[in-house]
Amino acid sequence: MTDTSIFPDPTYRDAVLAPLFEGVKTHFAGHMDAINRAHLVMLVETGILQDQDGAAIAEALLDIERNIDRQALEYTGEHEDWFFLVEAELRARLGDLGGALHTARSRNDMDHTMFKMALRARAEDALARMLTLGQALLDKARSERDTLIVAYTHGQPAQPSTFGHYLSAVIEVLLADAKRLEAAIQHVDHCPMGAAAITTSGFPIDRERMAELLGFQSVRLNSYGCIAGVDYVTGLYSALKLPMIHLGRVVQDMAFWSAFEVGQLHVPRSLVQISSIMPQKRNPVPIEHLRHLASVAASRCDTMINCMHNTPFTDMNDSEGEVQQAGYGAFEHAGRVLDLLTAFLPACSINGDRVARTTDAACITITELADTLVRDEELSFRQAHEIAAQTARAVIADAQPLGGGFAAFSQAFEEATGRAATLDAAGFASAVDARTFVARRDRIGGPAPAALDSAFNTYQHEIRMLAGDLKARLERRTTAETDLNAAFDALLKGPR
Amino acid sequence: MTDTSIFPDPTYRDAVLAPLFEGVKTHFAGHMDAINRAHLVMLVETGILQDQDGAAIAEALLDIERNIDRQALEYTGEHEDWFFLVEAELRARLGDLGGALHTARSRNDMDHTMFKMALRARAEDALARMLTLGQALLDKARSERDTLIVAYTHGQPAQPSTFGHYLSAVIEVLLADAKRLEAAIQHVDHCPMGAAAITTSGFPIDRERMAELLGFQSVRLNSYGCIAGVDYVTGLYSALKLPMIHLGRVVQDMAFWSAFEVGQLHVPRSLVQISSIMPQKRNPVPIEHLRHLASVAASRCDTMINCMHNTPFTDMNDSEGEVQQAGYGAFEHAGRVLDLLTAFLPACSINGDRVARTTDAACITITELADTLVRDEELSFRQAHEIAAQTARAVIADAQPLGGGFAAFSQAFEEATGRAATLDAAGFASAVDARTFVARRDRIGGPAPAALDSAFNTYQHEIRMLAGDLKARLERRTTAETDLNAAFDALLKGPR
Amino acid sequence: MTDTSIFPDPTYRDAVLAPLFEGVKTHFAGHMDAINRAHLVMLVETGILQDQDGAAIAEALLDIERNIDRQALEYTGEHEDWFFLVEAELRARLGDLGGALHTARSRNDMDHTMFKMALRARAEDALARMLTLGQALLDKARSERDTLIVAYTHGQPAQPSTFGHYLSAVIEVLLADAKRLEAAIQHVDHCPMGAAAITTSGFPIDRERMAELLGFQSVRLNSYGCIAGVDYVTGLYSALKLPMIHLGRVVQDMAFWSAFEVGQLHVPRSLVQISSIMPQKRNPVPIEHLRHLASVAASRCDTMINCMHNTPFTDMNDSEGEVQQAGYGAFEHAGRVLDLLTAFLPACSINGDRVARTTDAACITITELADTLVRDEELSFRQAHEIAAQTARAVIADAQPLGGGFAAFSQAFEEATGRAATLDAAGFASAVDARTFVARRDRIGGPAPAALDSAFNTYQHEIRMLAGDLKARLERRTTAETDLNAAFDALLKGPR
Amino acid sequence: MTDTSIFPDPTYRDAVLAPLFEGVKTHFAGHMDAINRAHLVMLVETGILQDQDGAAIAEALLDIERNIDRQALEYTGEHEDWFFLVEAELRARLGDLGGALHTARSRNDMDHTMFKMALRARAEDALARMLTLGQALLDKARSERDTLIVAYTHGQPAQPSTFGHYLSAVIEVLLADAKRLEAAIQHVDHCPMGAAAITTSGFPIDRERMAELLGFQSVRLNSYGCIAGVDYVTGLYSALKLPMIHLGRVVQDMAFWSAFEVGQLHVPRSLVQISSIMPQKRNPVPIEHLRHLASVAASRCDTMINCMHNTPFTDMNDSEGEVQQAGYGAFEHAGRVLDLLTAFLPACSINGDRVARTTDAACITITELADTLVRDEELSFRQAHEIAAQTARAVIADAQPLGGGFAAFSQAFEEATGRAATLDAAGFASAVDARTFVARRDRIGGPAPAALDSAFNTYQHEIRMLAGDLKARLERRTTAETDLNAAFDALLKGPR
Repeated sequence: MTDTSIFPDPTYRDAVLAPLFEGVKTHFAGHMDAINRAHLVMLVETGILQDQDGAAIAEALLDIERNIDRQALEYTGEHEDWFFLVEAELRARLGDLGGALHTARSRNDMDHTMFKMALRARAEDALARMLTLGQALLDKARSERDTLIVAYTHGQPAQPSTFGHYLSAVIEVLLADAKRLEAAIQHVDHCPMGAAAITTSGFPIDRERMAELLGFQSVRLNSYGCIAGVDYVTGLYSALKLPMIHLGRVVQDMAFWSAFEVGQLHVPRSLVQISSIMPQKRNPVPIEHLRHLASVAASRCDTMINCMHNTPFTDMNDSEGEVQQAGYGAFEHAGRVLDLLTAFLPACSINGDRVARTTDAACITITELADTLVRDEELSFRQAHEIAAQTARAVIADAQPLGGGFAAFSQAFEEATGRAATLDAAGFASAVDARTFVARRDRIGGPAPAALDSAFNTYQHEIRMLAGDLKARLERRTTAETDLNAAFDALLKGPR
Repeated sequence: MTDTSIFPDPTYRDAVLAPLFEGVKTHFAGHMDAINRAHLVMLVETGILQDQDGAAIAEALLDIERNIDRQALEYTGEHEDWFFLVEAELRARLGDLGGALHTARSRNDMDHTMFKMALRARAEDALARMLTLGQALLDKARSERDTLIVAYTHGQPAQPSTFGHYLSAVIEVLLADAKRLEAAIQHVDHCPMGAAAITTSGFPIDRERMAELLGFQSVRLNSYGCIAGVDYVTGLYSALKLPMIHLGRVVQDMAFWSAFEVGQLHVPRSLVQISSIMPQKRNPVPIEHLRHLASVAASRCDTMINCMHNTPFTDMNDSEGEVQQAGYGAFEHAGRVLDLLTAFLPACSINGDRVARTTDAACITITELADTLVRDEELSFRQAHEIAAQTARAVIADAQPLGGGFAAFSQAFEEATGRAATLDAAGFASAVDARTFVARRDRIGGPAPAALDSAFNTYQHEIRMLAGDLKARLERRTTAETDLNAAFDALLKGPR
Repeated sequence: MTDTSIFPDPTYRDAVLAPLFEGVKTHFAGHMDAINRAHLVMLVETGILQDQDGAAIAEALLDIERNIDRQALEYTGEHEDWFFLVEAELRARLGDLGGALHTARSRNDMDHTMFKMALRARAEDALARMLTLGQALLDKARSERDTLIVAYTHGQPAQPSTFGHYLSAVIEVLLADAKRLEAAIQHVDHCPMGAAAITTSGFPIDRERMAELLGFQSVRLNSYGCIAGVDYVTGLYSALKLPMIHLGRVVQDMAFWSAFEVGQLHVPRSLVQISSIMPQKRNPVPIEHLRHLASVAASRCDTMINCMHNTPFTDMNDSEGEVQQAGYGAFEHAGRVLDLLTAFLPACSINGDRVARTTDAACITITELADTLVRDEELSFRQAHEIAAQTARAVIADAQPLGGGFAAFSQAFEEATGRAATLDAAGFASAVDARTFVARRDRIGGPAPAALDSAFNTYQHEIRMLAGDLKARLERRTTAETDLNAAFDALLKGPR
Repeated sequence: MTDTSIFPDPTYRDAVLAPLFEGVKTHFAGHMDAINRAHLVMLVETGILQDQDGAAIAEALLDIERNIDRQALEYTGEHEDWFFLVEAELRARLGDLGGALHTARSRNDMDHTMFKMALRARAEDALARMLTLGQALLDKARSERDTLIVAYTHGQPAQPSTFGHYLSAVIEVLLADAKRLEAAIQHVDHCPMGAAAITTSGFPIDRERMAELLGFQSVRLNSYGCIAGVDYVTGLYSALKLPMIHLGRVVQDMAFWSAFEVGQLHVPRSLVQISSIMPQKRNPVPIEHLRHLASVAASRCDTMINCMHNTPFTDMNDSEGEVQQAGYGAFEHAGRVLDLLTAFLPACSINGDRVARTTDAACITITELADTLVRDEELSFRQAHEIAAQTARAVIADAQPLGGGFAAFSQAFEEATGRAATLDAAGFASAVDARTFVARRDRIGGPAPAALDSAFNTYQHEIRMLAGDLKARLERRTTAETDLNAAFDALLKGPR
């Protein structure tokens, strides 16, 4: 078989190589610079390269960084990819020595190191936004600690609670999501450098030093895993997906709460799209946008995991360049969801009139009346429930609010027990009052003020811990960057 | 509740409205122009608008099309969206009359009409590429009609076949995929215009005429479905996903066939990435890129369907602007898969030496020997199988090719039957020859030449039919465009 | 490497082989009987087997069918699988001749034939249920042709329509889904028999006859595709998923419509779960069950497609036994969704009081007032809209229904135009009446009675066509079964 | 609207209520018993119930547990669900007092408590199996520490490594998966009891005590989250999915390694399905079964997450009974994958002959020769690479193994440098020997023996830690069970 074809095939160039090249320009070239610098420093420090060679290479790298206008470059096919373009530039400046920078490394370990650097930055940003949202929700929850709402089960009014209590539930889920994301970031933060193509190198490299210079938490141990283990990708996107699913559920509640007929949530004018002809039509469209942005973000996370499905456990493009980039859209969408929720929820308020109206119309405090009868009148549960139900039926038949049902209650009580209730009109009114309902639910995790205050403190503590860890993580990165540049500058000055 | 906030909230503007606006500039503004023109023509034709008003509005539309530099526009929040910007421009030119263009329509029906126009163009393009791939595969199959390959089951060599037979299987699946896509395009091609917000209009509009002017096959009947039925989206992406899954399986075969140890498929130099240090290492990387591009394309299709999951059946943003755009990436990726396969598969060739070596080493013609004994020696199946198996064991023990196993066969035959075989050395060699194996499999759908030729004709006919339908579809569009512009120009000239 | 291990490894037996065997007992053994019978008939008809051998084998097959208690069999590992168990039974009865039935076929083509037989039955059943639902919805739509509802956009009341109009939109989507499913069933209905292991057979088999005897529409052409092309699976589940997504959206509307505060949909007591203590709490729980059943059904369809992702294009277990069975749960869930909706939607009714109240409170007929002013008072759109909006604001400020807003309208009209409106109080009341709104929307696809009647006829025609095709399909199957059994019985009687 | 219909509608009964009832019998009834017991103990301990009432209820519960044959019960529709059936039995035995057990709780908190109990048992079982697999892989890795393999990149032979090194990479990923699962289990292990319907209770319940009695790690704080936060489901299935994706990639490697032409992996007879007619055909079918079992398991995990998508954040059936049960299939499949891999991988062995043959044929040690020249001959990288490449080309042209290429090397060296190499024949042979290659890769994470031994110790430590934590978790559960039963028995004896 004679094969006179020449690389690259034009379709391959246009459909694959050129897009890849553009992707490197946008996303990875800066990280490759850092890797080049760090690797050079390490090669000199370990004596694999002589000082003077190190100095010469450093000079050439700096020259390339400074004098090549990357954004202007277009893919021609002359060099297979960005890496080879840089190597050609090095050789153009240094001759054979240009190849020495590639001692004891490979595109394989470099690639996953770049991908991790690009990914952890996005993930840390997402985590920061989640914590910002968490804090905004907590502040809102504190200020709405006592604001009554109708809580629903099966889509129907069920019990009174407070907006602060509801938001606390959201915060709890969000904090669990944040912890999961933080754990996933830690798994990204293991440096592959030194794995070289697959099996590390026969040169006496220092993998820990590379990890340190590039701001990683540690090395990734097994070198085969460094280039084949895509679990840092799957683990991270898996962790990013969940808050999108979870917050999407809160968004569905907000859609319902803000429906014309429900009206529990007031969305301010700044977040409502209106109709010139129908002045009463207020479309809280941000809610829909939150929903689809979260849906798309979640699904883009799936893409990243599914892309690895049934691939071999080896170095392969299924976890590289273009696929990595496909994932960034998930972060972009997730970021918008988090930002928009951070603006949206605190800007909204509860329409107390509507809450009161539904509370009354749906008799959702009626269970507390029954409980009161059990506690204070020492009735059996069945009797208490029957009297309460009878009362509810009566006020509904009269289209009265439950609070006005004392007469009906008294009659039901007497019929059932053969005696008058000790509960008087005021007691009755209190027993069926939503505030009483809430105040009595003071067990751990309940909506009563003290229970909520205690929970708020817990959440605040957790947010602070997570934010502190994130800050420390970012500072370690800054320090590493400073150290790397100092070491590189020292190289430039050459052998002392 | 006093609410002094002003639309739009800055976060909402940045996170939602501005990106939406950019999307309209890129993807939908041209289609909105066409809709504006067609709607105006229809309003005048039905007498809903007077001729002179129609002329004035036509003039203004033309002026806006010509004199506003769309790409230069940036979202400011002054107008809620692109639609309102255009309306404001109309009013600036026409005063109150500017609003008349919006008679008997709504952003709801306009939106889905634009989305469908943008989508059908992409879908038709994808279909065209599928047919191009189909034709390329058919041409290749014809030229490789007689090229032997090893066919595998359970990942192990199983039987000889031909490359033409294998490719025919691929073509058949692809044609079924193309038909599914074509059916999905038809479902997209029903015009929503005239549905207005939900329920059509009280004005005597002509929905069929709108469909015709915009090059649609017909109207979508129920007006609620026009603005709420996202099935045109789900149906189309569902149909686009399948070829990505199916072709991805062919890609997995190509990965295996081109492995160093297997070597059945020769990938030419133009499509192989090599290593300067390992001259023997040939990485057929396009295969990997095909795999991940197909995976991402398939998953992006899922995104579009999943995004509709558990949304209400109503007009909503979950099927609009940004989500629509999220889907375009599926077409972009799918297009690259189709193009690259169209270049890749025909460029590859079968390495006959490797095929012959594996055929022999794996004794994959042995079943034909047994069948021959049944047919020609009138043995029972068990006896025939035992003799064949014995022969195979013997040649494997001697590390001989099966073709050289006549002595072993003769001995096995005599031991089993107590007589000499009538099959002589030449007959034996023929019985275990891969070409004989293939030639005898001449039933419908088999690899024998005549069976394949007949199948090729079937495929060619189907490709021509599909291509013809697509051509007719595109011509109808061109005609509609011409007619629309003529009708619009006639308006411009004003009442006769 | 000496390898003294004995098949099967106990873990493999327990984790794979035994479950597979159980699956065959439950799902496939009956289809294997039919295949055995048909293959035997074909072998004799083509002269591949002698008549008397055919008679003997037929006798043995009948004996096995009649005398082995399949359900009592447990997997022991003695025979690799069900197929080998049957073959052993044949050999026990017939000696060497027992193997002759397997001439010119393979487990590969038999498997996919069985899978298709099992699948098409399920798919036809699902299609029948979809058509039953379609007919039920159409009957309901006819009887609710004039029943007013509030139609929503962005989750807010937008326009009046009718329940019949809404249901028609649902029917249209469902019919498109049914057509897609029907097309998918056709793609299942191509017989793989005769493909044998991969490449057909060297014996003069008659593939068309096999297809006919087993009730298939035709053969699947390419024999490699017969055993490797999983597109019949992906295509079918892809088609089954969509109605689950689409109906799930209708379910979300029903959830909203039946919310306590909305109350547009009355769910009868037979479908509501109540609370003994809260007599007013009516939980329309079937709606939630419909939602999750549809979600799980859709996701199980995904499972079937995703399972094929990145598998080789070859015969392999990823599309066989256990995976096939994993898909049946999708049909089981889908069937429940279809049945429950068929019971649920017709049983529900529209609460006219609530519809009227929301219609008034949300002023959703206000656009028709503006249109009326344009048409009848020849106002510009802007003026008309301003007067209408002013009227709406006034009635809302007074908490009046819109119908009572004639005074406010008159004042707004005079202020805007400097003249009295020609529209009098009755005209105004009519202009803002929901019935007028609907009656005027008589364009194709609109909610006005004549438009709906015409649409109903279209839907009825389509349902009849689909049901007719399905009936013909099922009859072809019955005929094939009769013919097969007759041919088999003729064999039993032996050579004439 | 008169509504004379009676609950339950027969279709609803058959399609929903009866299957739900069956599910409770199989999966949840035992957990409900434990909850009933614990709740009763807590009610008495907190004084909400009197001692003698507690004793009576305990007696009745015991009687119900002992004397009702649950498996024999069939759903009739008389009681809405299992819960009401039990309550009816209590009332039948205790009269009104029967209702007292339901004080301060609700089906809502009970349900999620049951679901968590059922789920954590499955998750702990899966974790135990993962650790068993991890230990089996580690034992195998230790015993295969020095067994050479060919490592691949882009599907092509790339470098020598050892089976122990490869397995270590697998172990590392598995351990990260195990940690993720462990974290997910912790999130499941927070008790919802005491949340009651939504907001806790007005009675002085002790939530911590309930958590303790039911063996939970702690309470779930916010009571709304207890009944609405499905994140315990999504988090767990998200964590279970990843090992299925990751192990599926190892399975793909095993499929390739065991291909006839590759033959690096020997699968023993106990795990190979053979063909009677093709004695040389060995189908390592367990590999395929592993692949599809893992695919289905992963997809079933998706089902659980996707089912929550766009549901409201509230108590709802989308996270309850039937959906919970749909998830168990994921554990069932995952368990089989883990068990089968635990049996499969240790039973396989590396075919050293094939490894050596591919190592030689593909010249995969050639990079080490170049590195040696750089280190020992002090050549530039370019020169070293050119000599190595030249050598490779020469041996390939001669179809020689690389080890026999000293002459070719010497010639290339002299041509390039103008001098003789100091590397002699033995040195050359050593430089290109796979053992040397591996031995020199002794950096952290490399395949050299000492590096591997150190890694093994790390993995063993991590497995022990995880296993220890799991053991402690299971012991806490056993203790809780003992304590609960003791407290319940004490109740039975009545007030002291």
